[in-house]
Amino acid sequence: VKAKLNIVKIGGALIDDEAALKEMLNAFSKLEGAKILIHGGGKLATELASRLEIKTQMINGRRITDSASLELITMVYGGLVSKNMVAKLQALNCNALGLSGADANCIKATIRPKEPIDFGYVGDVVKVNEQQISSFLRSNICPVFCAISHDQKGQLLNTNADTIAAEIAIAMSETFETSLYYCFEKKGVLTDVTKDESVIKHLNQAGYENLKAEKLIFEGMLPKLENCFYVLRHNVAKVYIGQYTMLANKNDLFTTITL
Amino acid sequence: VKAKLNIVKIGGALIDDEAALKEMLNAFSKLEGAKILIHGGGKLATELASRLEIKTQMINGRRITDSASLELITMVYGGLVSKNMVAKLQALNCNALGLSGADANCIKATIRPKEPIDFGYVGDVVKVNEQQISSFLRSNICPVFCAISHDQKGQLLNTNADTIAAEIAIAMSETFETSLYYCFEKKGVLTDVTKDESVIKHLNQAGYENLKAEKLIFEGMLPKLENCFYVLRHNVAKVYIGQYTMLANKNDLFTTITL
Repeated sequence: VKAKLNIVKIGGALIDDEAALKEMLNAFSKLEGAKILIHGGGKLATELASRLEIKTQMINGRRITDSASLELITMVYGGLVSKNMVAKLQALNCNALGLSGADANCIKATIRPKEPIDFGYVGDVVKVNEQQISSFLRSNICPVFCAISHDQKGQLLNTNADTIAAEIAIAMSETFETSLYYCFEKKGVLTDVTKDESVIKHLNQAGYENLKAEKLIFEGMLPKLENCFYVLRHNVAKVYIGQYTMLANKNDLFTTITL
Repeated sequence: VKAKLNIVKIGGALIDDEAALKEMLNAFSKLEGAKILIHGGGKLATELASRLEIKTQMINGRRITDSASLELITMVYGGLVSKNMVAKLQALNCNALGLSGADANCIKATIRPKEPIDFGYVGDVVKVNEQQISSFLRSNICPVFCAISHDQKGQLLNTNADTIAAEIAIAMSETFETSLYYCFEKKGVLTDVTKDESVIKHLNQAGYENLKAEKLIFEGMLPKLENCFYVLRHNVAKVYIGQYTMLANKNDLFTTITL
């Protein structure tokens, strides 16, 4: 029997809300057994960028990670957000360790091809170091990942946090029975975005295709859900999407994704 | 027989000099066996502070770490400097892991008493987690510490990098035969600060007292050397002070400190 592992990905809005972040860390710290936290970006970096007069470069509506943006991300997510979250988890008796993908070579990536669009210092995951992460978990360490990888040639790379969560979950499923929780602002997949009660409690791939055809799900939800089905096809045991409150309260409304 | 451990502390001037930093990381990565890197601050944080219009608070000529300064230090040293150094070491096949004292509870500190001077978020080291650091070293990991500790109650604390290096060296000497290298701008302890050739190759406590009485050593050197004797009195095997070039070249000029 494989040991259980809970992987929780939290989004930027949560990081910006001090009270909610505190509640989330509290709920997370109480999850039993092996666990991993992955945090996305928040408004902090955007705010700091404006104070430093660093402009976000856009090409065809897509954000570009130039070297100034990469420095900013490394400072804010790899430093400020990560270390503060780690200190708070330590106070909750959770033995947190803040990591980028460069640390202990946990996540190797390759810079995205410069054609058709040069996204700058953006990395696509090549390999998650499952052995190293397992070794941390066996030592009762709780890895806390920011969404930064490296190319093993000395370059840090900005990487999508949902993707990092997905790739870590897939890699860890070799040795663990892995549950992946995607926490965001909504209660889950809603059929009416204005109503929390419209949460779909169970969504499978056929149901997803129907909702997509009926145009009942949002732009941003499409890649999120594609990610969920992708990890389920790659042996991740369970995938949930909803608010962080689902971590503490199993009677909460949230969406369970299945194939 | 205890296994050997090399601990290298580098100062801020080195971090600000890209070419020298590259050479240092190269020399460091070639040190055999267990090793730990500790990095101090550089001008990067001061530059960023001025761009963000964060003013350094001073009381009686002493720098105060207010919350804005702590955020800055956490971003720059815990994030930007740490992660870039780790990525560069990984490219040199050194399995670096960037750590603050909060990470895996490696360095517990207590906030400095607010009397007679309130230094703000400054921490004095209480306990180095020798077991955790040993476990990293046994896993072939090279810890890279920034000079930030935590109080285990959720608060990060700014801590002197020389002190962190000293306390880590002392704690690790329980299980390792530890050599501590303090790298800074000078070739070592000089009797004439304008002349590298005036390096004292061996300095013991009696020699130090003489130099101090003759006022041949500088203000800033006094706490540095006190630190060296302090660690030697606490079972650290060897202490060296000089430029980073001593790591690669044993024929280099540098000062060996003995009791």
